[in-house]
Amino acid sequence: MEKRRSILITNDDGIKSKGISVLTAMMTSYGDVTVVAPLEAQSGMSAALTIGKPLRLTELKNEKGLRVYACTGTPADCVKMAMNQLYKGSLPDLLISGINHGSNASVASLYSGTLGAAAEGTVYGIPSLGFSLCSHNPEADFSIVEVYGKIILDNFFKNPVKADVFLNVNFPALKPGEAKGIRFSHQGKGKWIKEFEERTDPYGFNYYWMTGEFFNLEPDNLQSDHNVMEMGYVSIVPHKIDTTDYDELQRLESIWKL
Amino acid sequence: MEKRRSILITNDDGIKSKGISVLTAMMTSYGDVTVVAPLEAQSGMSAALTIGKPLRLTELKNEKGLRVYACTGTPADCVKMAMNQLYKGSLPDLLISGINHGSNASVASLYSGTLGAAAEGTVYGIPSLGFSLCSHNPEADFSIVEVYGKIILDNFFKNPVKADVFLNVNFPALKPGEAKGIRFSHQGKGKWIKEFEERTDPYGFNYYWMTGEFFNLEPDNLQSDHNVMEMGYVSIVPHKIDTTDYDELQRLESIWKL
Repeated sequence: MEKRRSILITNDDGIKSKGISVLTAMMTSYGDVTVVAPLEAQSGMSAALTIGKPLRLTELKNEKGLRVYACTGTPADCVKMAMNQLYKGSLPDLLISGINHGSNASVASLYSGTLGAAAEGTVYGIPSLGFSLCSHNPEADFSIVEVYGKIILDNFFKNPVKADVFLNVNFPALKPGEAKGIRFSHQGKGKWIKEFEERTDPYGFNYYWMTGEFFNLEPDNLQSDHNVMEMGYVSIVPHKIDTTDYDELQRLESIWKL
Repeated sequence: MEKRRSILITNDDGIKSKGISVLTAMMTSYGDVTVVAPLEAQSGMSAALTIGKPLRLTELKNEKGLRVYACTGTPADCVKMAMNQLYKGSLPDLLISGINHGSNASVASLYSGTLGAAAEGTVYGIPSLGFSLCSHNPEADFSIVEVYGKIILDNFFKNPVKADVFLNVNFPALKPGEAKGIRFSHQGKGKWIKEFEERTDPYGFNYYWMTGEFFNLEPDNLQSDHNVMEMGYVSIVPHKIDTTDYDELQRLESIWKL
């Protein structure tokens, strides 16, 4: 009999979100699942760590094949907490972060707490990936993830991604039958515009809510993650931990006078 | 007469830290300076954004050639706030983040709020760089940054870095005369170990402080940023915003069955 896989799950929408419930239910068929997820929403937290204030870790469930913990910190804190306090030196076979409520394609990959956790897992040497659905609806229909996520995970286990790389998987908000399939793509170029809504408090002082609209800088690029998803495909991007630009390093080295 | 440059400064140690004061004094000789920095320390915040709670922006100084603001958010929030509320569509000629109290070499580049701000500037299309000194001393001697930072900035203005790339500059905690020079390098491989200190509160419950030691996974690599700095050089690494691993993309595309 095959050894049961050990699977670590986290997310950035928090332990109570629908996305992580769907993912947890999905992953129990692949192995023993440990969930360590933020107690509260941590969207946009990137790979942030909590320095200067203490963290709490609370056990919520400990059954055969499934243990669940809430952590007061960020998604990357959750991974560190799982590794230090629960795995204690051993490595899970897989880290999967999500299912995020909202796209993490294009520049969102920079800010994403979902992917910050996947990056953190990769630093530990855990094969890691992030799943995101292109819908912010708290009650979103995740059935496309259940169908296409299975194809991706089966491939992931059979032909693993190389060390120091994690996968960013974005699912369009479609029913499984409406999707066109799965495509590898690259991080698209985009930015946010109209980023703040300015308001005045009851005392006459200004404050700002972050809002914003995504602005696609490559509307005609058929290989970008954002556009692949817009066309109705599930998008997969392999992201590196080493973000050095080796070509630019060489170019600057040859022209700068140091 | 040359047009005066417009320079945006931020950091992650907060508006009151010595590093940002030294940097601000240093940069006023290069042009008109706008400082928008976190009100409180934001170390380890990566490229995190503040979503779900409002931000404040407070003007602290507005003189000829120097305006200073505190923002209640993260370093990346500060850049967004500067661009939306102060620059309003125009771009500064330079964003410089720091001087960080502590190294941002190796895996620290993933968690660094200093570099999160530089990445955010790069997304806007601002030529951006981060300066960090390898010392956590709040009263550290930054004179090595003043001497070698000038050489780096002169080169930066003469031969700019290409679009979508920012520079991560790490200075060893040495006197200028003790440093061996400046070297281009790449992001070193490392991780943190012994990451939490567990304590018990007065009510009998556990809590955790993030601490940790840096563990160098490439002690013999003479080109890694961490090691270059350990050898006594100022290290410069160009980092990409597009973190897609294009080789791995092609490899997976050819073997996965999708």
